Amino acid sequence: MELLEQRILEEGHALPGNVLKVDSFLNQQIAPDLSLKMGEDFAAHFAESHIDRVLTIEASGIAIGLTTALKLGVPLVFARKKKSILMTEEIFSTEIYSYTKKEKNMVLVPKKFLPANENVLIIDDFLANGDSALGLARLVKEAGATVAGIGIVIEKSFQQGYQKVLDAGYPLYSLARIKSLDNCKIEFMD
Amino acid sequence: MELLEQRILEEGHALPGNVLKVDSFLNQQIAPDLSLKMGEDFAAHFAESHIDRVLTIEASGIAIGLTTALKLGVPLVFARKKKSILMTEEIFSTEIYSYTKKEKNMVLVPKKFLPANENVLIIDDFLANGDSALGLARLVKEAGATVAGIGIVIEKSFQQGYQKVLDAGYPLYSLARIKSLDNCKIEFMD
Repeated sequence: MELLEQRILEEGHALPGNVLKVDSFLNQQIAPDLSLKMGEDFAAHFAESHIDRVLTIEASGIAIGLTTALKLGVPLVFARKKKSILMTEEIFSTEIYSYTKKEKNMVLVPKKFLPANENVLIIDDFLANGDSALGLARLVKEAGATVAGIGIVIEKSFQQGYQKVLDAGYPLYSLARIKSLDNCKIEFMD
Repeated sequence: MELLEQRILEEGHALPGNVLKVDSFLNQQIAPDLSLKMGEDFAAHFAESHIDRVLTIEASGIAIGLTTALKLGVPLVFARKKKSILMTEEIFSTEIYSYTKKEKNMVLVPKKFLPANENVLIIDDFLANGDSALGLARLVKEAGATVAGIGIVIEKSFQQGYQKVLDAGYPLYSLARIKSLDNCKIEFMD
């Protein structure tokens, strides 16, 4: 997605440790117009996949998950990283390692919001080592639903997650694909 | 907002302890079409307030903050409850007590995303004891910006937050105003 790549080049910062900081439009400050366009792009790509529901994870996935769900005309569900006292029903849970927070989190979705036999589109902001996307996919499988696709805003194609998602057989669509962040320089895949 | 009140009556659950559970469309599963309509409503109400920026708090505020910011044509910023390793710049922080998690959290916003002299619209899902809204307002004041308004999806008018926000002089606009949850029955203000 050219608009996104342009924004990444203009505002993104490649940091040591293969970290790409895009907090001015994706992660902490959010550009609503760009979020809408990205949601439209995801929705168009998965238009024939009969998506019943979009699943993402708090907090950075919610904005882009919302615009995607809006354009697909389906509900959005987000996995929580901490149990609310209001989560009294049965839940699906799995452990996910956060690359940017350097810690493991249990992520939780009430079972009632992940019904069996649905086609679920997983949306997330980053694909790095694949822990987040594959963790959400485990929840979908445990629910007896199908991972109809995984939509990623920024894929760091040089890290393990990309291959892991392909090996698992999930249809993957990334809006921006980064070939390298070596020497703190942002290089996209052709 | 009638559409919202109707949805609250259809899907909301009033629980002991004055808790209103609306996780099927606001808090965990999110109804994108309703979120968009609520955003439009907030944007219309604050159309003359020269809003520069919408501020909310993760996670439940993000969806409705996004649709409001989208309709106002301004950026959204959300306060985080946990520091990311990417938050390396100076931050504004304050302590907020979570009513549904029964714990205190430091909430954090990088200073660069809360510039001085702006008109900031605070958006949140619930107004109960006012900790969250007034905590976000403290961040705005610390930044040298102005709280141009506070937009709340569901105001529990019988709890302290409502009066606290009025006493602080902030323009308050709530889409649904709940008079009572006594005996686990949902009653709206007239």
